[in-house]
Amino acid sequence: MTLARSPLAPDAFPDLPVIDGVRFATVAAGVRYEGRTDVMLAELAAGTAIAGVFTRSATRSANVLDCQAKLGQDASGPAAIIVNSGNSNAFTGKHGDGSVAAICDAVTDHLGTPNTRVFTSSTGVIGERLPHDKITGKLGDLTAALHPEGISDAALAIMTTDTFPKGATTRCDIDGQTVTLAGIAKGSGMIAPDMATMLVYIFTDAVITQSDLQGLLSKHTDTTFNAITVDSDTSTSDTLLLAATGASGVDVTGNAGFEAALHNIMRDLAHQVVRDGEGATKFVEVTVTGAATDADAKTVALSIANSPLVKTAIAGEDPNWGRIVMAVGKSGAKADRDLLSIRFGDVLVAENGWVADNYTEAAGAAQMKPQDIAINVDLGIGDGTATVWTCDLTKTYIEINADYRS
Amino acid sequence: MTLARSPLAPDAFPDLPVIDGVRFATVAAGVRYEGRTDVMLAELAAGTAIAGVFTRSATRSANVLDCQAKLGQDASGPAAIIVNSGNSNAFTGKHGDGSVAAICDAVTDHLGTPNTRVFTSSTGVIGERLPHDKITGKLGDLTAALHPEGISDAALAIMTTDTFPKGATTRCDIDGQTVTLAGIAKGSGMIAPDMATMLVYIFTDAVITQSDLQGLLSKHTDTTFNAITVDSDTSTSDTLLLAATGASGVDVTGNAGFEAALHNIMRDLAHQVVRDGEGATKFVEVTVTGAATDADAKTVALSIANSPLVKTAIAGEDPNWGRIVMAVGKSGAKADRDLLSIRFGDVLVAENGWVADNYTEAAGAAQMKPQDIAINVDLGIGDGTATVWTCDLTKTYIEINADYRS
Repeated sequence: MTLARSPLAPDAFPDLPVIDGVRFATVAAGVRYEGRTDVMLAELAAGTAIAGVFTRSATRSANVLDCQAKLGQDASGPAAIIVNSGNSNAFTGKHGDGSVAAICDAVTDHLGTPNTRVFTSSTGVIGERLPHDKITGKLGDLTAALHPEGISDAALAIMTTDTFPKGATTRCDIDGQTVTLAGIAKGSGMIAPDMATMLVYIFTDAVITQSDLQGLLSKHTDTTFNAITVDSDTSTSDTLLLAATGASGVDVTGNAGFEAALHNIMRDLAHQVVRDGEGATKFVEVTVTGAATDADAKTVALSIANSPLVKTAIAGEDPNWGRIVMAVGKSGAKADRDLLSIRFGDVLVAENGWVADNYTEAAGAAQMKPQDIAINVDLGIGDGTATVWTCDLTKTYIEINADYRS
Repeated sequence: MTLARSPLAPDAFPDLPVIDGVRFATVAAGVRYEGRTDVMLAELAAGTAIAGVFTRSATRSANVLDCQAKLGQDASGPAAIIVNSGNSNAFTGKHGDGSVAAICDAVTDHLGTPNTRVFTSSTGVIGERLPHDKITGKLGDLTAALHPEGISDAALAIMTTDTFPKGATTRCDIDGQTVTLAGIAKGSGMIAPDMATMLVYIFTDAVITQSDLQGLLSKHTDTTFNAITVDSDTSTSDTLLLAATGASGVDVTGNAGFEAALHNIMRDLAHQVVRDGEGATKFVEVTVTGAATDADAKTVALSIANSPLVKTAIAGEDPNWGRIVMAVGKSGAKADRDLLSIRFGDVLVAENGWVADNYTEAAGAAQMKPQDIAINVDLGIGDGTATVWTCDLTKTYIEINADYRS
């Protein structure tokens, strides 16, 4: 099926800068799709620090297991990231392990990278054997095509049911010197906390150790990629890699500006994934305050964001706050009917266990009309807060997933 | 909107027997709906034992709170159950408590039942004040109309988005004497474990104490009403009441035949609720075996049964077992990719971490064609087992819930 570009897509793909120390190449290997690129290779300069966060699925793919085993090992040599779309290489048994090994060996042969510094991702259909020969057979072409400006093409090569490529960039100035970050992502369905069918690659020329980089990445995943949900389903392949080449010569260790920039690019890419949620017509920010703990706040926020009844009401532009009450109640978090208040945007809808005195259905309905919607719930119990992002649930989601073997 | 009768509905409503000691009446009070009955009253003979199970939602309705407070108190007098559809009286603040009190008082006035023996339920829209005067104003008519054969009419009066009334009956013979059970239920959306927008009333002429009756009801709820899910959303109003009038004179204390009959009628009604799942075209039984514990097995079974990607694949008759693997992996239960096996019906689909040797897509697809589908997962780890029931997720679910204020 041909999917229309999401109505929530950004106007244009951003102009992504070169990150010194990274070169990209893409190729059409015909893994599953015809007439498009489906493999991207990123070559990383010697000494690049690489951090990663992965799906916690008990049935995660061979690629994810391989990446996890390699993370944090010796970082002195050059490194590479190679990604294919069309086939996830998940639940492919021993064959899957073999495919990963074959791809890593081929990259090592062509780029001279140590095998332990080659990271692979695969995304697409689960349970079908990855035709890795199609990928390894293209490594000569890929190696020859490596160039510093290829990141935008890489964003296209990793797409599956995505309706637009996802990219973001930011900079930060540290003592008059500039550190640059640029990243790409894919993902539109099977998106839920604990990562999702989401692949994200972020590159920076900052100087930082692997362990410090890992600390920052893990810290900010909770409030970015692990705070989005499209359909509550969690992929077997989720991979987020952050590579710091050090080519800027600027040490960012302990720098708050770099940390803020990293958070922003992670949140930007996470939001783009939600904006490409399968069938989405609304981008929804759910903020919960006043919970007993931050964890309770996130539980309530996700209960709202994952509720099919809430999501279908939003699709219908129905200010159905009763369903918010339902989702709060079922979450398992501490809540009290009479302390709870609900706002759509800044419109107070419910408080003191009932609809607010001045609330009108028209005022609520007006808040449901824009593409971007805010649901704010205060539990009135403590200081716990959380924000998550989701999209609505429409007939198009059903169409895509009832008819498409993803 | 007018909803078509579910394709999964039984051919006909069963012929429900009279339960000695119970009389029913229904009336069109105009709470919300026009041109149909929307209140049912059941009068129960003095001494009737009443057991109950309710939603665990933190935002449960005033009616539920009132029922819970009354359960297990003095059972010597007559009792009554009164139910309205169209308005759930949930999240209606202090007004909600007042409505329950007014309805209970009116029943006490007309039937002479102690106030602590009057149980109320309300189902329908959340957050709108219940016009209880419309109900109390009809109590004279209701009282005059009470008759033993009214249970089928009661099943109609409690419907909301249901497309068919739900009823079941069974008997058991104990030492040559017969004990009879008959029950009715409503529910089609907002159905998930921890009960659902589900109201269930089961009546029997058995002799049994309230505490023994409660023990049986609680025990069998886990494997019946708390083992079904339509959309993972849990209602604020779920109520299951079981009333034993004792009119048969047959003591069922500790009798395995009665317990089996009770389990069967509970499961029968639970299945009917799933068969009326909003937009459902498939009835799906998910059985998990070989889990570390029974609790783990239920976690995995519900993860599969609640997965939008699994449910849309079933709607599309797509034997997409990769999504089953995903749902197992995300559940949080202990699982091992290489020990897991998956069957559609009796067709072995996957084992040893990959697709089964003899599996063909045609064989899997054939298992997806019938209205009733079985998904069987063995985790290969321990002895834990669980079975849950669900339905598929279709565009009609979206239509109903994006356009209907329920």
